Amino acid sequence: MADRRALVITAPGIMSLQSAAELTPGPGEVVARPVHTGICGTDLELLAGVVDPAYTRYPLVPGHEWSGIIEAAGPGVTGLAPGQPVIAEGIIPDRVCAQCVRGHTNLCLVYDELGFTRPGAAADQVLLPAQVVHVLGSQVGLLDAALAEPAAVAWRAIGRGRPRPGERIAVVGDGTLALVTTHLLRLYTPAELVVCGQRPAQADLAAELGATRFEVSGRAGMFDLVIEAAGTAAAVERAIGLARRGGRVVLVGLAGNDVTAALPIDDVVNNDLLISASFAYTSAAWADVTALLSAGQIRLSPLITHRFPLEAYEEAYDVLRSASGPRGKVILDVSAP
Amino acid sequence: MADRRALVITAPGIMSLQSAAELTPGPGEVVARPVHTGICGTDLELLAGVVDPAYTRYPLVPGHEWSGIIEAAGPGVTGLAPGQPVIAEGIIPDRVCAQCVRGHTNLCLVYDELGFTRPGAAADQVLLPAQVVHVLGSQVGLLDAALAEPAAVAWRAIGRGRPRPGERIAVVGDGTLALVTTHLLRLYTPAELVVCGQRPAQADLAAELGATRFEVSGRAGMFDLVIEAAGTAAAVERAIGLARRGGRVVLVGLAGNDVTAALPIDDVVNNDLLISASFAYTSAAWADVTALLSAGQIRLSPLITHRFPLEAYEEAYDVLRSASGPRGKVILDVSAP
Amino acid sequence: MADRRALVITAPGIMSLQSAAELTPGPGEVVARPVHTGICGTDLELLAGVVDPAYTRYPLVPGHEWSGIIEAAGPGVTGLAPGQPVIAEGIIPDRVCAQCVRGHTNLCLVYDELGFTRPGAAADQVLLPAQVVHVLGSQVGLLDAALAEPAAVAWRAIGRGRPRPGERIAVVGDGTLALVTTHLLRLYTPAELVVCGQRPAQADLAAELGATRFEVSGRAGMFDLVIEAAGTAAAVERAIGLARRGGRVVLVGLAGNDVTAALPIDDVVNNDLLISASFAYTSAAWADVTALLSAGQIRLSPLITHRFPLEAYEEAYDVLRSASGPRGKVILDVSAP
Amino acid sequence: MADRRALVITAPGIMSLQSAAELTPGPGEVVARPVHTGICGTDLELLAGVVDPAYTRYPLVPGHEWSGIIEAAGPGVTGLAPGQPVIAEGIIPDRVCAQCVRGHTNLCLVYDELGFTRPGAAADQVLLPAQVVHVLGSQVGLLDAALAEPAAVAWRAIGRGRPRPGERIAVVGDGTLALVTTHLLRLYTPAELVVCGQRPAQADLAAELGATRFEVSGRAGMFDLVIEAAGTAAAVERAIGLARRGGRVVLVGLAGNDVTAALPIDDVVNNDLLISASFAYTSAAWADVTALLSAGQIRLSPLITHRFPLEAYEEAYDVLRSASGPRGKVILDVSAP
Repeated sequence: MADRRALVITAPGIMSLQSAAELTPGPGEVVARPVHTGICGTDLELLAGVVDPAYTRYPLVPGHEWSGIIEAAGPGVTGLAPGQPVIAEGIIPDRVCAQCVRGHTNLCLVYDELGFTRPGAAADQVLLPAQVVHVLGSQVGLLDAALAEPAAVAWRAIGRGRPRPGERIAVVGDGTLALVTTHLLRLYTPAELVVCGQRPAQADLAAELGATRFEVSGRAGMFDLVIEAAGTAAAVERAIGLARRGGRVVLVGLAGNDVTAALPIDDVVNNDLLISASFAYTSAAWADVTALLSAGQIRLSPLITHRFPLEAYEEAYDVLRSASGPRGKVILDVSAP
Repeated sequence: MADRRALVITAPGIMSLQSAAELTPGPGEVVARPVHTGICGTDLELLAGVVDPAYTRYPLVPGHEWSGIIEAAGPGVTGLAPGQPVIAEGIIPDRVCAQCVRGHTNLCLVYDELGFTRPGAAADQVLLPAQVVHVLGSQVGLLDAALAEPAAVAWRAIGRGRPRPGERIAVVGDGTLALVTTHLLRLYTPAELVVCGQRPAQADLAAELGATRFEVSGRAGMFDLVIEAAGTAAAVERAIGLARRGGRVVLVGLAGNDVTAALPIDDVVNNDLLISASFAYTSAAWADVTALLSAGQIRLSPLITHRFPLEAYEEAYDVLRSASGPRGKVILDVSAP
Repeated sequence: MADRRALVITAPGIMSLQSAAELTPGPGEVVARPVHTGICGTDLELLAGVVDPAYTRYPLVPGHEWSGIIEAAGPGVTGLAPGQPVIAEGIIPDRVCAQCVRGHTNLCLVYDELGFTRPGAAADQVLLPAQVVHVLGSQVGLLDAALAEPAAVAWRAIGRGRPRPGERIAVVGDGTLALVTTHLLRLYTPAELVVCGQRPAQADLAAELGATRFEVSGRAGMFDLVIEAAGTAAAVERAIGLARRGGRVVLVGLAGNDVTAALPIDDVVNNDLLISASFAYTSAAWADVTALLSAGQIRLSPLITHRFPLEAYEEAYDVLRSASGPRGKVILDVSAP
Repeated sequence: MADRRALVITAPGIMSLQSAAELTPGPGEVVARPVHTGICGTDLELLAGVVDPAYTRYPLVPGHEWSGIIEAAGPGVTGLAPGQPVIAEGIIPDRVCAQCVRGHTNLCLVYDELGFTRPGAAADQVLLPAQVVHVLGSQVGLLDAALAEPAAVAWRAIGRGRPRPGERIAVVGDGTLALVTTHLLRLYTPAELVVCGQRPAQADLAAELGATRFEVSGRAGMFDLVIEAAGTAAAVERAIGLARRGGRVVLVGLAGNDVTAALPIDDVVNNDLLISASFAYTSAAWADVTALLSAGQIRLSPLITHRFPLEAYEEAYDVLRSASGPRGKVILDVSAP
């Protein structure tokens, strides 16, 4: 396997497929072969160079949503072996800081993330600390597993919202994160599970993933739990308005630097709302998502609407940029399953 | 006692001390004699006529913060007898709606409140459903007890924030509610208990009630728990900024119709904040405050900076309107203890 | 309808079907016509006279599990009208005690219960305080609804256990309460939902209600959550043994006066277990169960294995006493739906 | 410093002070000089050889409760430097297992503990992974800090009980753990804080540490929260009996292999109790205790009733074995502060 490839953003605006040296795992590390690697809005921002420099290191190999197969395990690694199907946390927590030891690995004091500050999975090989690797059950489709990252984000957010069966739940947004969130919320058997989105073309996809209804505006004050997964000021304002008196709102969508939503103070206080923000994911969320995938309780691949071989990366990025027609996740097929 | 008095707001802008017929308790009711009755910003709004008409009924006897003595108990009332020192919930919950039966009496589907829709305690007598009356321990000073209402509001808000000993806690605001909140937070033995206020003249009062420090601006990102009790957009924005990553914010201050704060979406999400709003109080909060007062664990009377006999009500309202010098609670002394 | 009937236990050991005067609802009351009335182990104890006298009043009309139709509503009753299909909480909370106002209506300081201290629903009419009546959606089958009472018990217990999708959950017991609990737990989409029972003949019923497996012994230390619904010392001991390290156990089964289980102190501490007991039900649980039934999310009638007309009550009690073959709920059909 | 000493239990029953080679920290490690090292009942069991062999490795240097000074830090260690006063978690969590990443470091899948499976602090030097070391504020007395280990156990247990100001709280037991628990509970400002112990001679010590009363039997059914810290079947049974209806019980005391308490099933269910067991401590508890010590919010040294130089270890163990007179913690003074 002489010529390994890696998609490299040399500097903002400049991306190419390059050949890469073979990777060898050091102590406590593994090397995996990505099979499917998703791209998302943040990847567009990484290419454009608009992500806060504190969170990036160029040249940069993108790819933080992926599934693959272990190729090699380094010295001292136990429980991981070549051939195993795996996914891996993108954020690499240090495990020993004040946040990590409390289980808040999403708030780790040291930031390091696949596809941002260390080479990601849009490549034929990816190097990983063994401690962030999760082994999938043998029945799991790698296409389903490629969506584990947004699923982990959604699962952490859902946990903050403490859903209960029989509740009326709304998800604001109609993109990948919103639809993954919807699919996971299904597990709590809500009485209603409404996707409130701006693109009616997404309605069928929403239904297939478990929504009981798609609405553009939503009914104000009607929901026990509302999860905002669109990441715009308007969506945050709508989410707060959808919650019933005594209801709960979870904010998970990122809106971009310095974007503010208008928080109606008295409405929020009079309605006794609980507004939980949820950043990224915890290691616990990854473990849970791995188990849900492995038990066949979630099936995320219906969200994938576009697939391209790695070498067609430009086309993939173009599709992601344009928003016509129903669109779910865009995937780069990096290697054969 | 032929000539009982009641302070009456006949219509917005018109207030006078009038003589009132003697009250007799019906089944399940008691009549109490208010001893001390506080006035607050909302009373100014009731006089000005700017409170949402859905929550008022004129002519209106104000007075929702008070302590007093039971004069008579109606048929079927048990556990309450003339001579007992008491306080009473201002909001009269119906006890049977979907919110009440879950303990969320602050969200009762039927609104009825002393001093808003039913005659309050700025009068020689007040009529009360027995079910909202709380009997004080014999050691409790009625001046301390006169602040039970804001204490119940504060206690509900504090409970939403789940404080723990050793935490760094900030209270945003320097009015009565903020200082009562500070005094109650003391019970959790925080490592720091900072009052962030706009009026340095309140610093001594804050210290006397338990604050470890008074600051005008506060240190951003430093607090485990922040309670906003000022009720302005700037205060809400400051409160959100004061919370550390992974911290909690409680919003309890009301800001007035349609006032919005700028919610910095990405900061809130990246910081994984929990923002809990808290409306009014529950019956449970009143029971707890009654117990804390009765056990001598809280002492709120230092907050009282101005006292007037009932007949000097105009002067009392004037003092409340003007904000020069340190000012805590303004009290009308209605009858002898 | 000149001759209304009521099943009456005149004194322990003596039961007969008697004619009864027509009931008229007073203020705040309704009269309902029971359609289906279940009998349970406690009814056998009421007949035998072995229930603590503090909780009974003879002559006694049994019947605390039932569904029916409103016949008449008394003065001041709103939201309830003749013809509506209803269920009702058996325990009548006073709504104003220290427990009720916190939502803990199951711990109400005043005890009063249909079929124990006030006439129950094994009769052509039953008198009810309006505040405990829950109106069913028009689609709900009254047979399903007849199991609302054990469902409310199960739902309160489940809430104490905080289940999460993907967990391994065990229910210890194979009687009505255990199987209803299993059916409701299904709503949380556990990865495994194992019924650990003593009667393999119940396995099919368990499967129909949602169990993924029936086991006699269960695998020790394997479950995230275990709910004990059998009410024997052995079952409690088994439940504690089934929980994994860091797991949760809920005890809901009653075992009879003075029965003790052997609590293995060091195992419980080393395993960091959380053991929650759950007594009866709250009003909130009834509201939730009503909503789940009305939304068609639960279907309990498969649990009903035996039905008798009211006049065949002796046969019904006999069937309940004997335990051969699969047996779920025994129902008296009191009137036509 | 040619001749470093270590107390060594060569094999069960055989203990001596031996000379030891100087320790050098490897990567990620530090060497500390213990100043004060406490001994406890478990140390007696380690000497007797009655601790489960899965948790011990002989020859064994005891000492898991201690405070000291860093002497040297190995390569790659940051934030730790010679001269700093420190304490350290005894249980060394692996930080990467399924329990650790959720913050449940007390349930780490890999067991390794200072003074059990690796050399403890009854020695002139102790080798530590840097990740378990907590730096004390410069004001903290090392004698107070020597009790950090039982304080961490108590703090984890207290957190499970969710105390609130104004509650009636009982601690069952009168040994070190019970009294440390009492001292920490003080921070929540309970209305009553009763120590229920068997040795009235401990009453003064209990009062000094914050108890409002010492009782031998306690009043049944009167407490909102009861923490069992004695570790006997009778104490567990008493603890369950002391809780009020709807109350909470925390079990933290270990009773010895196979000891069972009689769990009164119906009482527990009727009383809707929440029984939480708490094993050892989490890293979070250590961080909290370090902060409480550093802020001067807790002062544990009054618990120390006996001190001996290291070489008088036999006398120290003898005192610990005999229980006449008030007795708190027995300390070995290993080196000068």
